[in-house]
Amino acid sequence: MLRSDSSIGQARAAVADKREAILRAAIKVFAQKGYFNSKVADIAKEAGIADGTVYLYFKSKEEILHSVFDRAMEEFIAEGKREIAEIEEADKRLQRIAQLHLEKLGADRDLAIVFQVELRGSTKFMEEFSGGGFAEYLEIIQKTIQEGQKTGVFRKDLRPITAAKILYGALDEMVTNWILSKRAYPLAPMADEVLKVFFGGVLQK
Amino acid sequence: MLRSDSSIGQARAAVADKREAILRAAIKVFAQKGYFNSKVADIAKEAGIADGTVYLYFKSKEEILHSVFDRAMEEFIAEGKREIAEIEEADKRLQRIAQLHLEKLGADRDLAIVFQVELRGSTKFMEEFSGGGFAEYLEIIQKTIQEGQKTGVFRKDLRPITAAKILYGALDEMVTNWILSKRAYPLAPMADEVLKVFFGGVLQK
Repeated sequence: MLRSDSSIGQARAAVADKREAILRAAIKVFAQKGYFNSKVADIAKEAGIADGTVYLYFKSKEEILHSVFDRAMEEFIAEGKREIAEIEEADKRLQRIAQLHLEKLGADRDLAIVFQVELRGSTKFMEEFSGGGFAEYLEIIQKTIQEGQKTGVFRKDLRPITAAKILYGALDEMVTNWILSKRAYPLAPMADEVLKVFFGGVLQK
Repeated sequence: MLRSDSSIGQARAAVADKREAILRAAIKVFAQKGYFNSKVADIAKEAGIADGTVYLYFKSKEEILHSVFDRAMEEFIAEGKREIAEIEEADKRLQRIAQLHLEKLGADRDLAIVFQVELRGSTKFMEEFSGGGFAEYLEIIQKTIQEGQKTGVFRKDLRPITAAKILYGALDEMVTNWILSKRAYPLAPMADEVLKVFFGGVLQK
């Protein structure tokens, strides 16, 4: 029994490893060739496996793109929730979320290209991805702003969902600029630049 | 001579009309079918002209997309410059720019789809479009912020280019949300929502 359990465990781990290898390869291929120009065969080659093997794990190139998005969002949201659970003040929680957003994408340029460019090339994709993990992310920001309004940290005359979208939009623009820039610079520190404006505004008091 | 001048004028006007008709048709086709799925023949059909006629005006589908972008940015920038030239305070100028951004795209949903989605589906496009008209737009925002810092309207501890990108990113997110929303609402009023945060910040003073 022990041996059998152990082999099932090993088999599961092998499946997870192969899925993981395919997704890693896909991120690289999509970032380099663009989603529309990428073929499942390119992903298989990058992952060092046979074309047919990819289809044991994913039905199509589109399913691979969805899995790339879902997996990255799940990881990001799980880590974000874990971290902010330990922070009391709403503004500090928001700061940590913003930092994490730029740390994650700043640590993986290929993933950032997939997120900023490849996922946005069609209204169909945009509609699919603006639901799901993305909506959950926006809701976390929104709730944090609401909580801050209750505790008196944040102004009460702002709609939390609109403020959440403004913060997201500003961070998102930092990521896109970072990808397109010819100059190499760390992305993560831009979070505090964004928060300086988002928290304090640009007007001289 | 008079008649000849007049016919040249008429011929030029006819060329401009046809170019204009092709670009209008292209915006509609790109928005509905997506750029990658659109064919020059679809654009010709929508414009009510022969396929070959399109090629008298544009070399390729890609050149049409570039012309759509260039023309819209030129119009927007010319109108923006004209309007802000008459406004003295930097914050009021910024407000007018933000309003104009959302008024323009809010008045033309197809153009907004082309701008928010179709122009962003490849790193190649993103690189091309982030130069040119887009860079000029960002520079106008940046300079307005710099001027406001000089006159004391805006805080001096912010990098103008970063603040400009934050404002742009927030407005841009409003446009994308507006396109993807199942709910119909006017886009233009969102400019003042963005400015409330951008000017004053979310922190309770």
